Amino acid sequence: METLMEMARKGEYPEWLKNVEKYEGIRLEKIIKLISEGKIVIPKNILKNDDSFRPRAIGEYMSTKINANIGTSADYVNLEEEIEKAIIAQKFGADAIMDLSSGGDLDYIRKRIMDVVDVPFGTVPVYQLAREKNILDADEDDFFRVVEKHAKDGVDFMTIHAGVNWVSIERLEKSNRLLGVVSRGGSLTIAWMKQNDSENPYYKNFDYLLELLKEYDVTISLGDAFRPGCIHDASDRVKFTEFIILGELVEICRQNGVQAMVEGPGHVPMDQIETSVKAMKYATRGAPLYLLGPLVTDAAAGYDHIAAAIGAGIAGMHGADFICYVTPAEHLGLPTIEDVKEGVIAAKIAAHAIDLVKEGQKERARKRDYEMSVARRDFDWEKQFMLSPDPEKAMEIHTRVKPSSETCSMCGDLCAIKTVKEALKK
Amino acid sequence: METLMEMARKGEYPEWLKNVEKYEGIRLEKIIKLISEGKIVIPKNILKNDDSFRPRAIGEYMSTKINANIGTSADYVNLEEEIEKAIIAQKFGADAIMDLSSGGDLDYIRKRIMDVVDVPFGTVPVYQLAREKNILDADEDDFFRVVEKHAKDGVDFMTIHAGVNWVSIERLEKSNRLLGVVSRGGSLTIAWMKQNDSENPYYKNFDYLLELLKEYDVTISLGDAFRPGCIHDASDRVKFTEFIILGELVEICRQNGVQAMVEGPGHVPMDQIETSVKAMKYATRGAPLYLLGPLVTDAAAGYDHIAAAIGAGIAGMHGADFICYVTPAEHLGLPTIEDVKEGVIAAKIAAHAIDLVKEGQKERARKRDYEMSVARRDFDWEKQFMLSPDPEKAMEIHTRVKPSSETCSMCGDLCAIKTVKEALKK
Repeated sequence: METLMEMARKGEYPEWLKNVEKYEGIRLEKIIKLISEGKIVIPKNILKNDDSFRPRAIGEYMSTKINANIGTSADYVNLEEEIEKAIIAQKFGADAIMDLSSGGDLDYIRKRIMDVVDVPFGTVPVYQLAREKNILDADEDDFFRVVEKHAKDGVDFMTIHAGVNWVSIERLEKSNRLLGVVSRGGSLTIAWMKQNDSENPYYKNFDYLLELLKEYDVTISLGDAFRPGCIHDASDRVKFTEFIILGELVEICRQNGVQAMVEGPGHVPMDQIETSVKAMKYATRGAPLYLLGPLVTDAAAGYDHIAAAIGAGIAGMHGADFICYVTPAEHLGLPTIEDVKEGVIAAKIAAHAIDLVKEGQKERARKRDYEMSVARRDFDWEKQFMLSPDPEKAMEIHTRVKPSSETCSMCGDLCAIKTVKEALKK
Repeated sequence: METLMEMARKGEYPEWLKNVEKYEGIRLEKIIKLISEGKIVIPKNILKNDDSFRPRAIGEYMSTKINANIGTSADYVNLEEEIEKAIIAQKFGADAIMDLSSGGDLDYIRKRIMDVVDVPFGTVPVYQLAREKNILDADEDDFFRVVEKHAKDGVDFMTIHAGVNWVSIERLEKSNRLLGVVSRGGSLTIAWMKQNDSENPYYKNFDYLLELLKEYDVTISLGDAFRPGCIHDASDRVKFTEFIILGELVEICRQNGVQAMVEGPGHVPMDQIETSVKAMKYATRGAPLYLLGPLVTDAAAGYDHIAAAIGAGIAGMHGADFICYVTPAEHLGLPTIEDVKEGVIAAKIAAHAIDLVKEGQKERARKRDYEMSVARRDFDWEKQFMLSPDPEKAMEIHTRVKPSSETCSMCGDLCAIKTVKEALKK
C-alpha cells in the first residue's frame, strides 16, 4: 500500500484526486507535483470511503481552508450537542473538523462525530491518553497505542507534539515567558518528560511514529507546543527553536512519504505576523501552515473570533494555508453551537479575504465578490442574501425595516448607487 | 478668536489640552507641534463646554480612535433608538459619533443626540440639504447654509465632499467601475453638478467654506466621494485622483489654520491596503486618515463588521488613525442598537490591535494585554472579565458551564497553564 505522497512521486494518483482538481481549479499535474514535494497535503485515511468523503487540499496555490475544533471536556459532556456542532460547522463552510474531546467515552464520541463528518477529520491522540490514566504514569508504548487506535478508527490527520524535546524545553526554561506553555498536548508531554526524566517518545521514536501513520496514510500535523499564549511571549527564542525542530521533522516525514503540516502561533502582534509566518515557511521549506489564530490582542475575550480573524487575514496574506477557527468562547469556556457558527463564519470570511489575494486562487475568488457587487448594483436582494455568509441572517436584517423602494433602509431614497446611476445617464 | 491650529503655531494652547496630554501619554509640546503641522486634529467646536467635553486627538502618535455612525433614514425614524445607540456606542468605547440622520426633523434629532454625546460629534451637512429639498434644485448658497447651521449648532467635525470636481468626474467617466459612486454625499454632489452644469460649490468656493468652519473651529473631514464600493473598483485611477485633489485641499486648510482630516476607502483587497494608506498619507503630507472599513471582501453581508475589522487592522498597521465602525447591518439596512454595539466592539478590537504596534502608543497599549495575561496565569476571572470588551458577556460565557476547578470548562483539569506550572516546579 502506497501513501498519496509516494504515488505522487511516481506521477500516479487515485481517482478521487480529480475532485480536488475541480474543487481547486488547479491542474492535476500541478497538484501531484505539490503533493510529491510536501508543499500541499490532502488528509485522508486509507479507510475513508472515496465516494462520500470530500477531500480538501491544504497548502500553496490551494484555496484557504478552515478547521473547527469541537468536543467534550471533563466539565461538560453532551454528545448530541457536539454532533450538532460538527454539522453546523460543515454547513457554514468548515473544511475540516477536529474532535478534541477529553470527557466521556472518547472512542464512542469520536465514532459518532465521524459519522456526520465528510471532510478531513482530525484528533489529538494524547488527550485520550491523558483521560485514560494519569499522563505521568503512562509508558512509552501508551503514546503510540493511542495513535494507532485513532488511525484504525479512520482519523485523517493528527496533531502530535513531536517538536517538544530537551532542546526546546531548555530554551523555555531560559526564557522569560509570562504564560509558559498554553498548548494542552504540549503541556502534557512536558509534564511526562519531567516526571519520567525521559525524552518525548514522539520525538525519540519519530520513525516508528511515522510507520504507524504511514500504514493508514494519516497526515501528521506537527503541533506547536510552544505557541505564544500572549502578546508578551510572541516571537521569542522558544518559538523560533520550535520552528527549527519542526522543520527537521518535516524533512523526515517527506523522506518517509508521510504528509506533514506544521502548526503555528498563537498570540502575535500584527506587525510580527509576517515574519512569524515566513520564518515557519522557510524553516519547513514550504510545508502547509496550519494556524491557530493568530490573535492580535490578548484582551478580546468574548470576541476572540474577531481578534483571530484579523490575525488570520494577515497571516494568510503572507502564506498561512489552513486557519483554525476561534470562537467567541475562547479563553472562557466550551463553545455553544451558536459560538461554533460564529467562529466558522469569522474564519471563513478571513479565508475568503485571503483567497482574494492568494496566488492560484484570486481570480476564482473574485468571481464571488464580482457577483455580489453586480447584485448590489442591480438591487438583486435574493442574490445578495445567497452570496452572504448566512443568507437567513442577511435577509432578516434587510427585511426587519421594510424599505420604501428597491434600495435598503440605511439610505432609503438617498441611495448613492441609484443617485449616480441616474445622474450619469444625463 | 483663534483656531486651535493657529494657537499651536504660536506655541499656545487651551487649558483642556492638558487632558489630551494625559489621555494620550504624549508630551504636550509634541501634541502642540503635531497640531501646528496638521498631523493631528482634535475636533472641537468653540461652542463646546470645556468641562463636560472629552476631547479626542486623531493622528500620528495618538491612540487609534473609532467613530460610530448613527441616525435615522427616510424609511425609519425613531429618535429614542438613535439616542440609545449614541449612549451604547460611547459606553463600548466610541471616540466620536456621527449623526447621519436623513429622516424626520433633522435639527431636533441632531440637538437631542448631541445632548448625550460628550466626545467629538460629526455630521454630513449635505444630507440635510438633500432632505430639505430636491438636491437638484438647490442653489450654491444652500450648500453653505447647512454647513453654517451645523457649525452654529456646535458640531465638531463635518464630512464635506470638496474633492468632487470636474477633474475627478472625468476620471470616473473614463473608468470601468462596476459600482460607480457609493458615497451618499458624493453622489448628491455629482448629481447636482451634472444637473446644473456647474462646479461643486464646496470645491469652487473652498476658501469661503473654510471661513465658515474657521469661525467655529470646526474640523473638516474631506469626504472620499470616490471610495471603491467593491473589490473590483479598488485602487483605481479615480481613487488616486481623489487622493491628489484631497491632498491639495489639505494644504489650503493648513494655510488657513483649519484642522483637516482625510477619509479613505472603502472596499480594498488585503494586499492593496498598505499602498492605499501610504498613498493617502504621502499625498496629504501626513494628514490624519479616517478610514471607512476597508472591507476586505464584498461578500460578508451580515458580518461586515468582521470584514471591516480585518481591513482596519491592516490599515492601522500602515498608518490609518481613525476607524469608522461598520456594523453587521452594513449593505443591508439600518443598524439596531445591538448592531451598533457589535460594530463598536469590532472596531475597538482592531483599534487596540493597532495601538499594540503603533509608534507612541505600543508600550501603553501592551499594559492592558499584559494585565490580561497575568490574570490568565493567575486564574483571576474577575480581572479577565473586566479587561474584556464586554465584561457581562465574558462572565456569561465563563459561567454557563460551571468549571470544576479554578480553570475553565474548555480544558477542565487538562489546563495547559496549570499542567506546565506544576511540571516545571519539579
